[in-house]
Amino acid sequence: MAQKKPLNIGLVGYGFMGRTHSNAYKQVSQFFDLEYRPVLKAVCGRSEENARKFAENWGYESFETDWRKIVERKDIDAVDICTPNDSHAEIAIAAAKAGKMVLCEKPLARTLKESLPMVEAVEKAGVPNTVWYNYRRVPAVTMAKQLIEEGRLGKIFHYRANFLQDWTISADLPQGGAGLWRLDAAAAGSGVTGDLLAHCIDTALWLNGSIDTVTAMTETFVKERKHNLTGKVEKVSIDDACAFLCRFQNGSLGLFESTRYARGHKALYTLEINGEKASIRWDLHDLHRLQYFTHDDEGKLRGWRSIHVTDGDQPYMKHWWVPGLQIGYEHSFIHQVADFLENLAAGKPCSPTFREALETQAVCDAVLDSAETKQWQSVVL
Amino acid sequence: MAQKKPLNIGLVGYGFMGRTHSNAYKQVSQFFDLEYRPVLKAVCGRSEENARKFAENWGYESFETDWRKIVERKDIDAVDICTPNDSHAEIAIAAAKAGKMVLCEKPLARTLKESLPMVEAVEKAGVPNTVWYNYRRVPAVTMAKQLIEEGRLGKIFHYRANFLQDWTISADLPQGGAGLWRLDAAAAGSGVTGDLLAHCIDTALWLNGSIDTVTAMTETFVKERKHNLTGKVEKVSIDDACAFLCRFQNGSLGLFESTRYARGHKALYTLEINGEKASIRWDLHDLHRLQYFTHDDEGKLRGWRSIHVTDGDQPYMKHWWVPGLQIGYEHSFIHQVADFLENLAAGKPCSPTFREALETQAVCDAVLDSAETKQWQSVVL
Amino acid sequence: MAQKKPLNIGLVGYGFMGRTHSNAYKQVSQFFDLEYRPVLKAVCGRSEENARKFAENWGYESFETDWRKIVERKDIDAVDICTPNDSHAEIAIAAAKAGKMVLCEKPLARTLKESLPMVEAVEKAGVPNTVWYNYRRVPAVTMAKQLIEEGRLGKIFHYRANFLQDWTISADLPQGGAGLWRLDAAAAGSGVTGDLLAHCIDTALWLNGSIDTVTAMTETFVKERKHNLTGKVEKVSIDDACAFLCRFQNGSLGLFESTRYARGHKALYTLEINGEKASIRWDLHDLHRLQYFTHDDEGKLRGWRSIHVTDGDQPYMKHWWVPGLQIGYEHSFIHQVADFLENLAAGKPCSPTFREALETQAVCDAVLDSAETKQWQSVVL
Amino acid sequence: MAQKKPLNIGLVGYGFMGRTHSNAYKQVSQFFDLEYRPVLKAVCGRSEENARKFAENWGYESFETDWRKIVERKDIDAVDICTPNDSHAEIAIAAAKAGKMVLCEKPLARTLKESLPMVEAVEKAGVPNTVWYNYRRVPAVTMAKQLIEEGRLGKIFHYRANFLQDWTISADLPQGGAGLWRLDAAAAGSGVTGDLLAHCIDTALWLNGSIDTVTAMTETFVKERKHNLTGKVEKVSIDDACAFLCRFQNGSLGLFESTRYARGHKALYTLEINGEKASIRWDLHDLHRLQYFTHDDEGKLRGWRSIHVTDGDQPYMKHWWVPGLQIGYEHSFIHQVADFLENLAAGKPCSPTFREALETQAVCDAVLDSAETKQWQSVVL
Repeated sequence: MAQKKPLNIGLVGYGFMGRTHSNAYKQVSQFFDLEYRPVLKAVCGRSEENARKFAENWGYESFETDWRKIVERKDIDAVDICTPNDSHAEIAIAAAKAGKMVLCEKPLARTLKESLPMVEAVEKAGVPNTVWYNYRRVPAVTMAKQLIEEGRLGKIFHYRANFLQDWTISADLPQGGAGLWRLDAAAAGSGVTGDLLAHCIDTALWLNGSIDTVTAMTETFVKERKHNLTGKVEKVSIDDACAFLCRFQNGSLGLFESTRYARGHKALYTLEINGEKASIRWDLHDLHRLQYFTHDDEGKLRGWRSIHVTDGDQPYMKHWWVPGLQIGYEHSFIHQVADFLENLAAGKPCSPTFREALETQAVCDAVLDSAETKQWQSVVL
Repeated sequence: MAQKKPLNIGLVGYGFMGRTHSNAYKQVSQFFDLEYRPVLKAVCGRSEENARKFAENWGYESFETDWRKIVERKDIDAVDICTPNDSHAEIAIAAAKAGKMVLCEKPLARTLKESLPMVEAVEKAGVPNTVWYNYRRVPAVTMAKQLIEEGRLGKIFHYRANFLQDWTISADLPQGGAGLWRLDAAAAGSGVTGDLLAHCIDTALWLNGSIDTVTAMTETFVKERKHNLTGKVEKVSIDDACAFLCRFQNGSLGLFESTRYARGHKALYTLEINGEKASIRWDLHDLHRLQYFTHDDEGKLRGWRSIHVTDGDQPYMKHWWVPGLQIGYEHSFIHQVADFLENLAAGKPCSPTFREALETQAVCDAVLDSAETKQWQSVVL
Repeated sequence: MAQKKPLNIGLVGYGFMGRTHSNAYKQVSQFFDLEYRPVLKAVCGRSEENARKFAENWGYESFETDWRKIVERKDIDAVDICTPNDSHAEIAIAAAKAGKMVLCEKPLARTLKESLPMVEAVEKAGVPNTVWYNYRRVPAVTMAKQLIEEGRLGKIFHYRANFLQDWTISADLPQGGAGLWRLDAAAAGSGVTGDLLAHCIDTALWLNGSIDTVTAMTETFVKERKHNLTGKVEKVSIDDACAFLCRFQNGSLGLFESTRYARGHKALYTLEINGEKASIRWDLHDLHRLQYFTHDDEGKLRGWRSIHVTDGDQPYMKHWWVPGLQIGYEHSFIHQVADFLENLAAGKPCSPTFREALETQAVCDAVLDSAETKQWQSVVL
Repeated sequence: MAQKKPLNIGLVGYGFMGRTHSNAYKQVSQFFDLEYRPVLKAVCGRSEENARKFAENWGYESFETDWRKIVERKDIDAVDICTPNDSHAEIAIAAAKAGKMVLCEKPLARTLKESLPMVEAVEKAGVPNTVWYNYRRVPAVTMAKQLIEEGRLGKIFHYRANFLQDWTISADLPQGGAGLWRLDAAAAGSGVTGDLLAHCIDTALWLNGSIDTVTAMTETFVKERKHNLTGKVEKVSIDDACAFLCRFQNGSLGLFESTRYARGHKALYTLEINGEKASIRWDLHDLHRLQYFTHDDEGKLRGWRSIHVTDGDQPYMKHWWVPGLQIGYEHSFIHQVADFLENLAAGKPCSPTFREALETQAVCDAVLDSAETKQWQSVVL
């Protein structure tokens, strides 16, 4: 290990995503043989006590309570942004200006407009950058990408995806504040659109190319909730649910939906693609499986194959255990770190870069515009 | 059986639906103890040879080659219409005027406008009537209706349904003519919208109430096909695929899709309803199962239940075999005949009546209008 | 239909199996184009009222209350035996002697010894005969047979099957008498061994060849039950559960189990075969599906295929509806009648004949012997 | 973290299990708040190069090439044994004598006889000890244990388990040597019995109590393979497949099977328990799900629930991510370390202890004896 190059990480934010990223940095070197190894240099959080505790727990060498310190520290190579969406832009731009690599939790920012200067900043600074759309690196999803690139699906007719949760059905759940900023449009930008549909859109753009036009609807089922920051019952500002139809540039039709009111679904991200020659399906609740149907199979024996993506010849899996033994959610982050480090060594960008992630912002904006104007909207990048 | 009242059936059309209806009439009396028993009096088809063969095969006492004969015959009580959609209206109106009961294969007609006089005719004549939206009588679907009426789902947030097939992907498939009239808009009215989405919409209106507004898109993937009637390559007039978003009157959001280009799906009609307290899911490929999730279950033991709807306390199933032994597609038609006969004896209408089926026509029209105008459309009945 | 040859059926017994067989006779001619058509000539039951009612309901031309009348009647060609197991031998032998074809519900009899004279009788009389091991004619199971015969599985290593039910768990359930004779060893011969395992064994012998040796255990969980015929609480004489290991002649290992105490399973007959090149799985609760895994598939894309056996190129299915529309349990009986009639016209035996069904009796005997002696037993035919 | 007590680990063996254990030690402290934290003090392997590489990769402070050094080192608190089965006893006994805690990979040893002195040694030394039957700590399996202890299943009737793999079907696979010692009875003790069935038996004894008697069969499908250590084609000494029937002390019947010749199954460990009131099912290929059927559910709504074991109120899951996000295989080892450390702090044993693991050895011995003698065998502890 002595011969590996250290990459000093400064993490900003220590919530749910702070944990998944930290875990990824700690684990990657044992499973992937890479030129770089991440070093947990510093974590930053506004609460000194929490930041210290997090640093101790995860083995960060130090902690800060002002993100600007992270950006300024000479001993930090890469800034990882895990804060609520409303602070992504400011931190990322400052980090880029300070010459740091930037790894930003998704979505890039609250809107396309807010995202654009972030792209300019990292490109002007010439710093490696990536956005944590982690589901691209679930092995089954990566294999879906391979199958498409190998031409196995043929011309694509249909793409459908949804992301269904049920954790906000109770009207007693407050909005805003620690852990609940996702229910506050000021902090999050939007509700399920930026939080959940952004994942579906990122994967779709990656697998199926650009989206031209959309027609959408949104709904806020619980109109008022107590706001944790003010203590008052306030109008709910986010979209509880959002669905849209779209047309892709390749001529296929898209159908997307997300909600936090789908009783019985905890975090069910599903996608299905129907091509002329074959179809694939995947869902997050059994993320280690890919469903695959090919018309090439002999007629009477055609059927959907349930592929248990745990073999060494399947994406990323040679790094883990033995066939049949599944990995989980957290591994998608480890894979992203591994790819980031591998690309870093090779001098290549790590998808999705900030620029690539812009398109998801543009689609989200078009979707929210369409829901408001009740008109089809073009995606404008 | 001697004491049962005969109900003399005159069937018009002997295609796929002619078979399912005939089978239902033949079987119902052995499994349901009803006041009436259907008698297969006559079948009508334009080809004398085919009509005779069909009559012999199914035990019809006679056959005709002009549907007007069926309508006029004194020994016929009920006219069952299984012809392509473009002839439904004319036959139904004539049958009603002749005082016959009318059972009409879905959709009622090609458009709302064409359907309205049919409703007027049966209502003016006061004759019992029903439309064969057979999926209402799949036991698992009927049980879904019971669960909703018992209030088990609570307030409904989401309704989604699709009907996916893959049999028209090949560009070599011709359009029009016997067996392929579903690919000809002149005969069918529309493509998947009237053929497949009509089923989804009928079930949705039944389970979840009226739809207010829709936004839709349609696509014709194969633009030209040889037409069987002309022998020439002609523009394809139908929608190969159709998807729409909608808002129900009860405040829930709807998502519908149908296509004949979903590789790997033969006839996959699926529906899912998410309520405040519980959710249900069903699909046609395993039609004897209902998926049910209830938040009332103890927290750590909550999960989707796969209910094998084959027990005597589940809809229709006491008439069949023993628990665990599944019935199939054809039984939904037998159940509809049983319900028609039971309602007839009780002097009650059998859902969906022509009037009830109008609403599905109105939704289909709004969907096709929206796809054309690229505007949200209200459903106008 | 006029040109078809009538085959006059005399049915003895009108319980659950009387219904499935009658339904098969009534339906087969509409779906299969055969030289013969079954005619429901007479049904026989000890209760005059019930026999008359059954005859009326199913359209039997007449009824009898003594099975000997059925056997003697000149206008009957084939005797179908649906009585409890203890009367199979006497009726079958008498029918054969009278020159009737014999269709006997499974198992052939209570024991191998009781079965042998039945075989001799039909062979001496030279009458067509068959035993209703209906599951061979579930299309997915028939397709399994095809795949094995086509050599797709290669050398077989493992065969496992079970038949799980849960309807006798309650100690309040009585034994014996109408509808409950399956709980009375005097009438049934044994418990789950003859009732359920016999099915598993018949399929196994058909798909995988002869069984050499077995080691078994049985259990009676509820030791005493009220007997419906005596009104007294009596010792339960049947096996509630039975499991056995075995070695097939082809070198593969077998594992079989049956019980009526498997909470949650209504009638779950499952089988799985593992071969060198491929494996198959099937279960009765979703009987229209065959699971298939082949090592011939490309490495990274290998997975179990869920084949929806509803296409015209799959066994029996061209006679039914359209792809994706499933048939059910009752159709396996219709297929057996169709095959019986087709073989009759061709002068061929219809499997399993009485002789073929002997081997299942021999295995059942060896299993019960092994359970009693606690020794491995050879299957002796 | 400063205040946590270090527990210095000395790992012997660095194969597949060496990796899973090392990973567990490295991760546990970030996810579980425990009094102790494992410190990776030393790893031992016979190859200096490999041992150094492993130490560097996993962060072990040092390495040894003779396990006796590990046992003797004063700076090591606990010895973890991950070597082939034939060396477990010697190392464990020496470690215990040296006053070290001992964590031993399963099975405890090759036979019951070889295991007994190990138990004596740890008990005499009074050192904490545990055996890595890791599947007990898969959250779904742990929850199964809870449900049984809460009495939800009622009286148990049936227990069935199997462990199916397909990686040794090719006759070209050699036996013995690094990575393949599991195919060499001298090193492994037996084939699938000790490797795979031992897991099934351990779980069964834990969930369902002691086994009284067994009848078994084993088979070696490929009789000769090249031996990697000698370079010659030699007789295969292990059992490729093993199946047995058994009776548990609680009166329930058991059915167990394991093989490495089940084409299509990579590492499919499944178990099912049928009780009077409820049943459960689980399998390793979707290890984050528990199937649960309870007769307490309302009749018409009864069905198998697919419980996605990813919520905070389910075993171990509050330590991980958020509902719906699954963990994988490796986490079962992390849980075992967490439990070991928690019990250590509380002065309690961590199940299964060496003594508890003896019973699995006794069952394995009885199974192999029965297969050889073709007699039912009692389990003698």
